[in-house]
Amino acid sequence: MLGSGRRRSAATYLTDEVRTMTTSSPTSTRQVNGVDLDTLMATVQQIKDDPCLGACRFRARNAWLGGNRNRTTVSEFHGARQDIPHLQTFTLEADEPPILAGHDEGANPVEHLLHALASCLTTSMVAHAAVRGIAIEALESELEGDINLNGFLGLDPNMPKGYTEIRARFRVKARPEDLPRIRELAEFSPVFNTITQGARVVVDVQAS
Amino acid sequence: MLGSGRRRSAATYLTDEVRTMTTSSPTSTRQVNGVDLDTLMATVQQIKDDPCLGACRFRARNAWLGGNRNRTTVSEFHGARQDIPHLQTFTLEADEPPILAGHDEGANPVEHLLHALASCLTTSMVAHAAVRGIAIEALESELEGDINLNGFLGLDPNMPKGYTEIRARFRVKARPEDLPRIRELAEFSPVFNTITQGARVVVDVQAS
Repeated sequence: MLGSGRRRSAATYLTDEVRTMTTSSPTSTRQVNGVDLDTLMATVQQIKDDPCLGACRFRARNAWLGGNRNRTTVSEFHGARQDIPHLQTFTLEADEPPILAGHDEGANPVEHLLHALASCLTTSMVAHAAVRGIAIEALESELEGDINLNGFLGLDPNMPKGYTEIRARFRVKARPEDLPRIRELAEFSPVFNTITQGARVVVDVQAS
Repeated sequence: MLGSGRRRSAATYLTDEVRTMTTSSPTSTRQVNGVDLDTLMATVQQIKDDPCLGACRFRARNAWLGGNRNRTTVSEFHGARQDIPHLQTFTLEADEPPILAGHDEGANPVEHLLHALASCLTTSMVAHAAVRGIAIEALESELEGDINLNGFLGLDPNMPKGYTEIRARFRVKARPEDLPRIRELAEFSPVFNTITQGARVVVDVQAS
């Protein structure tokens, strides 16, 4: 599904503006929305100069802990033609609530997906607003998504197994006239685009 | 994109088997793969008797903490016609690495997405294997996904902004003849289906 049928989102029309910003203020020392524009612009400029630097591979390792519990560790990613270690290793726990035969020792996988989406929409709006000089004073969100367990449990083969709709409601403290533009910037979000456009997932199972 | 073009996956062919299992052993006391089948089967049986109980709404709240940091809390969900509190509130942190103008105080959003996928594939294989009496002794995975920052940064409007491909490599300790069936069971995963099939995401931005 990639590469075909993608709708031309509002976000794509902002490209020229980003180009102008990154060209006109590569040595800015401003912080906007708490984002260090020097650092961000330096990365943007390097990728503009050498687009191949933009190819990233993000990674995670997961270990099953028995029952519905499992744990992911994230320690490094690949970008700018090199493996880049995180400053710390992140450990993420998953479990299920008792009604789904778990012990509630972690959010469940579909709740983690909502977190990924909420955090990505937030970061995308804040960082892209910063680049454009749009100040955001406060931002919070509530997400809710619909899943019908008749799909996951295999009770109804015609029922979708994943989310059918996710609603993300943001409350933003900013100049009222900036709110529509801030909403447009959400469409840069990689997680938003992965979910709305879909992505290929290759699952391989081998003996250990 | 929902409701059209969905491919009929191997998982859907397992429906009759699940129905047989849940009918024939509703009072089983077995634990398989650490999954309490009594609890799981009770939930399955209730949804079979009243399919409307399967409609769930999962929820998350997120607060921006400045810069690229934000925090999600997950405290309850809706299922079986009621709001069900988790036994604890889960707190999930997101940040970006220094090269992306963050301080590495949490995995970044697209890494959280990999965690959601890894944990969901794992739970789906383990739980569905348990229902079918397929023993799994150990299971671990490595995930890697491709994102090109030229998309997210708006430098190339034709570059996808989300993941284009994610590879999940599982190593499973089980009877060799069960490995192909365990691989099939991954296709029940709600996060796998959300990513591969896509879902509608409605983003609303209001003044706070």
